[in-house]
Amino acid sequence: MQLLEERIRRDGNIKPGNVLKVDSFLNHQMDVELFNEMGKEFRRLFPSEKINKILTIEASGIGIACSAAQYFHVPVVFAKKSQSINLDGEQYVTRIESFTHKRIYDVIVSKKYLGKDDHVLIIDDFLANGCAVLGLIDLIKNAGAHVEGVGIAIEKGFQKGGSLLRDQGIRVESLAIVERMNDETGEIVFRH
Amino acid sequence: MQLLEERIRRDGNIKPGNVLKVDSFLNHQMDVELFNEMGKEFRRLFPSEKINKILTIEASGIGIACSAAQYFHVPVVFAKKSQSINLDGEQYVTRIESFTHKRIYDVIVSKKYLGKDDHVLIIDDFLANGCAVLGLIDLIKNAGAHVEGVGIAIEKGFQKGGSLLRDQGIRVESLAIVERMNDETGEIVFRH
Repeated sequence: MQLLEERIRRDGNIKPGNVLKVDSFLNHQMDVELFNEMGKEFRRLFPSEKINKILTIEASGIGIACSAAQYFHVPVVFAKKSQSINLDGEQYVTRIESFTHKRIYDVIVSKKYLGKDDHVLIIDDFLANGCAVLGLIDLIKNAGAHVEGVGIAIEKGFQKGGSLLRDQGIRVESLAIVERMNDETGEIVFRH
Repeated sequence: MQLLEERIRRDGNIKPGNVLKVDSFLNHQMDVELFNEMGKEFRRLFPSEKINKILTIEASGIGIACSAAQYFHVPVVFAKKSQSINLDGEQYVTRIESFTHKRIYDVIVSKKYLGKDDHVLIIDDFLANGCAVLGLIDLIKNAGAHVEGVGIAIEKGFQKGGSLLRDQGIRVESLAIVERMNDETGEIVFRH
């Protein structure tokens, strides 16, 4: 998606350790007008009328998922990273390792909001090693629901998440795929 | 806001300990079409052209803030509850006690996204004892920015947060104010 690639070139910041900082428009400060354009593109890429729910994970997936949901006319469910007294009743639980936070945590979705009749589109901001998305797929499978696809804002094409998922036959659509980037020169190359 | 009050009556769940569960449409599963109507109402209540940023706190404020931001044509910044390696540089930090999670945590906003020229509308899903909003106001004041107001989806009118803020001269607009509720009868009374 050209609009997103241009924005990454303009406002993204490459840091040592393969870190791409896009917190000025994607995951700390959020450009909601960009998110709406991304949402329209996700709808174009996933036109299936079967999709009746969008699943994301807190926190930085929520804004993108909510913007996209407007074009799908479906609710968003976000998986929660920690137990809350407000989440009683039964839950699906999975364990996810975070690349960003370098730690492992439990992720939960209430059984009320994911069930065997659901056809779920997963949306998240980043795809790197794929741990977060694999965790969400695990939750969906535990619920007996169907994975309709995975929509990602930025995929790090040089990490294994994308091929891990596609090799399982899961449809993954990333709006920008970074083929390589160089924190010394600032060069960034997208896959097309 | 009648639409929200009706939805709370229909789908809200009152639990012992003054807990109002609205996780079927507000803060776990999210009805984005409702959020858009709420966003339009926030714009009507806060028509000031000065507002150039919306500030919220992860995780459940993000969806509502992003929906609202479409009608303000401003970016959203969300305060983060824990330190991340992706948030380098300097940050504003404050400490917030969570009613829901019964714990105290640090909340941060990068100094890049909050400054003295900002006129900020705070948006959050719940106002109870006011700790989260007071923390966000503290961050805004540390940045030398201006608080233009506070927009809340559901205020618990029987807790002190609302009067604490209004007594400081802060404009607080809550789309639904629960005057009292009864977990045994299921009765819920709104303030008008």
